[in-house]
Amino acid sequence: MTITVAIDCMGGDHGPCVTVPAALDFLRKHEDVRVVLVGLEDSIRPLLGSVGDSRVSVRHAAEVVAMDEPPALALRNKKDSSMRIAINLVKQGEADACVSAGNTGALMAISRFVLKMLPGIDRPAICAILPTATGHTHVLDLGANVDCSPEHLLQFGIMGASLVSAIEHKDRPTVGILNIGEEDIKGNDAVKRAAELLRESGLNFIGNVEGDGIYKGEAEVVVCDGFVGNVALKTSEGLAQMLATFLRQEFNRNLLTKLAALIAMPVLKNFKKHVDHRRYNGASLLGLKGIVLKSHGSADAFAFTNALERAAEAVRSGVLARITERVAQQQPLQEIA
Amino acid sequence: MTITVAIDCMGGDHGPCVTVPAALDFLRKHEDVRVVLVGLEDSIRPLLGSVGDSRVSVRHAAEVVAMDEPPALALRNKKDSSMRIAINLVKQGEADACVSAGNTGALMAISRFVLKMLPGIDRPAICAILPTATGHTHVLDLGANVDCSPEHLLQFGIMGASLVSAIEHKDRPTVGILNIGEEDIKGNDAVKRAAELLRESGLNFIGNVEGDGIYKGEAEVVVCDGFVGNVALKTSEGLAQMLATFLRQEFNRNLLTKLAALIAMPVLKNFKKHVDHRRYNGASLLGLKGIVLKSHGSADAFAFTNALERAAEAVRSGVLARITERVAQQQPLQEIA
Repeated sequence: MTITVAIDCMGGDHGPCVTVPAALDFLRKHEDVRVVLVGLEDSIRPLLGSVGDSRVSVRHAAEVVAMDEPPALALRNKKDSSMRIAINLVKQGEADACVSAGNTGALMAISRFVLKMLPGIDRPAICAILPTATGHTHVLDLGANVDCSPEHLLQFGIMGASLVSAIEHKDRPTVGILNIGEEDIKGNDAVKRAAELLRESGLNFIGNVEGDGIYKGEAEVVVCDGFVGNVALKTSEGLAQMLATFLRQEFNRNLLTKLAALIAMPVLKNFKKHVDHRRYNGASLLGLKGIVLKSHGSADAFAFTNALERAAEAVRSGVLARITERVAQQQPLQEIA
Repeated sequence: MTITVAIDCMGGDHGPCVTVPAALDFLRKHEDVRVVLVGLEDSIRPLLGSVGDSRVSVRHAAEVVAMDEPPALALRNKKDSSMRIAINLVKQGEADACVSAGNTGALMAISRFVLKMLPGIDRPAICAILPTATGHTHVLDLGANVDCSPEHLLQFGIMGASLVSAIEHKDRPTVGILNIGEEDIKGNDAVKRAAELLRESGLNFIGNVEGDGIYKGEAEVVVCDGFVGNVALKTSEGLAQMLATFLRQEFNRNLLTKLAALIAMPVLKNFKKHVDHRRYNGASLLGLKGIVLKSHGSADAFAFTNALERAAEAVRSGVLARITERVAQQQPLQEIA
């Protein structure tokens, strides 16, 4: 089967300069994929050069959703935006997935309006991969929902587990809930009740995970509300940046330290590669009737290609069917309870 | 003036083995301090050796609050614990401050019960120092309160600003509120309303700070509810540990990388010193009628000494008076509004 990915080429801090080369790289790496490049044709075509690949098509979109545009306005006014058209392509079955590095709120609002929610899911959630001491973990929600009910958190758990089980071929991935202590009595009411629901859900629920437990790899899926998840993610980004700056400063202090840097360079490069956040780029917007991936706004071509690969992977592994199936299993349980 | 610090010698992962040497080091460094070592006399005395300093006294306490003991039980049953007696000494005016590396929840519950709250403050908050790209910042609450009203968050802002203003002699430290976007419309209802209150408060309020803004040093005081704050703190700890492990692994990979490590050692040591969390040990329990500092449970003697110094600093700079004064100023404003 050929997988078609619609790309919002105008989104992100760099627009087509990043998204188009990334798309071409993605095509080179995978023979079974096609891309539809959506955006201002005049900006996209020149970047294609003499590429005559039949697997690339360009779809003109006259408008662009700005990075700081209020989602409600983007939804109402930007019907001819690259983001909207890319999502429409998924709705119309012309693409199997859509990827954008644009305005997260707008992407969420438009996706939800155009694609609608899967049956049994109330709200979409943003699910990203984070590196851990032992591999990686999936964390959701990372900012789509600032106030979550226990039922929403349960749905996040089901969606996250379905995603991991589909993509990583794991039968029963472990699921934890982000909390401020390991004991059951800890946390706010929503989290405590959500833990009860998760425990009764039939998922492989391991209980509370503290902030440091994310990076220790204590669970393969970590559930949290979007406010807490977003703070955890951004705090991590900030800390990693600060540490990298300090390390660079120390190695730049004088001639001797610069010499040490030169000698340590291969090691530092390996270290950097190991923790490179670009490798984990591409967060899934779960719960929609369609596959939508959000790339980091500041992504470079390497990072954006990874988001495209993640989208293809989600299509290939049948994530949507897996979530739908799992939610349907859950319904009767919920009704009995 | 001589400052007397009551030390719960039994708290923390290591108990007297850490707290007693740290206390002696603290005495060596400061001529104007006294310590009261509270705990099992038989465990403390041998560690004092031949120290004949008139500035050390030992106060026997027969019980110990366990690290995993439910706070309510510790409050009800452990009236003769080292933690309780150390706090009592503050209440009775025999000590100016108390420091414990023990059970945070119990320390909070007992402090609140024994010392009571300052007028105008509803709940205590845990305030810690975190390093930033440009220096450091104070963040509160880090876990005392899992559900906060906008008014509580305002009080945290007032207390944090008073602390920084007293200790760092800054007239109007900047105050930000932890949120998931920089725009005013972002965040949950409590945070949005708290931002309004902070804006009207007369504090030097700079608006929303995102997770990465903490480490960028965007505000001198960052306010958040205890759930979010605790997740941010623990997530940071987890990430830092993971990165340190990866770096160590890379340098240990083979003979060549080990040689590189040897050469880079002085640089890595400086880096480690720069970001050493032990330097920031000692979180203030703000809002109480007394100075109580919480050390990290895993603190070593170097870290614990820092918590002791932080306690002395709080006494010296008159933090309690500053908070009381600032809250009193606020009252009329609140009543008008």
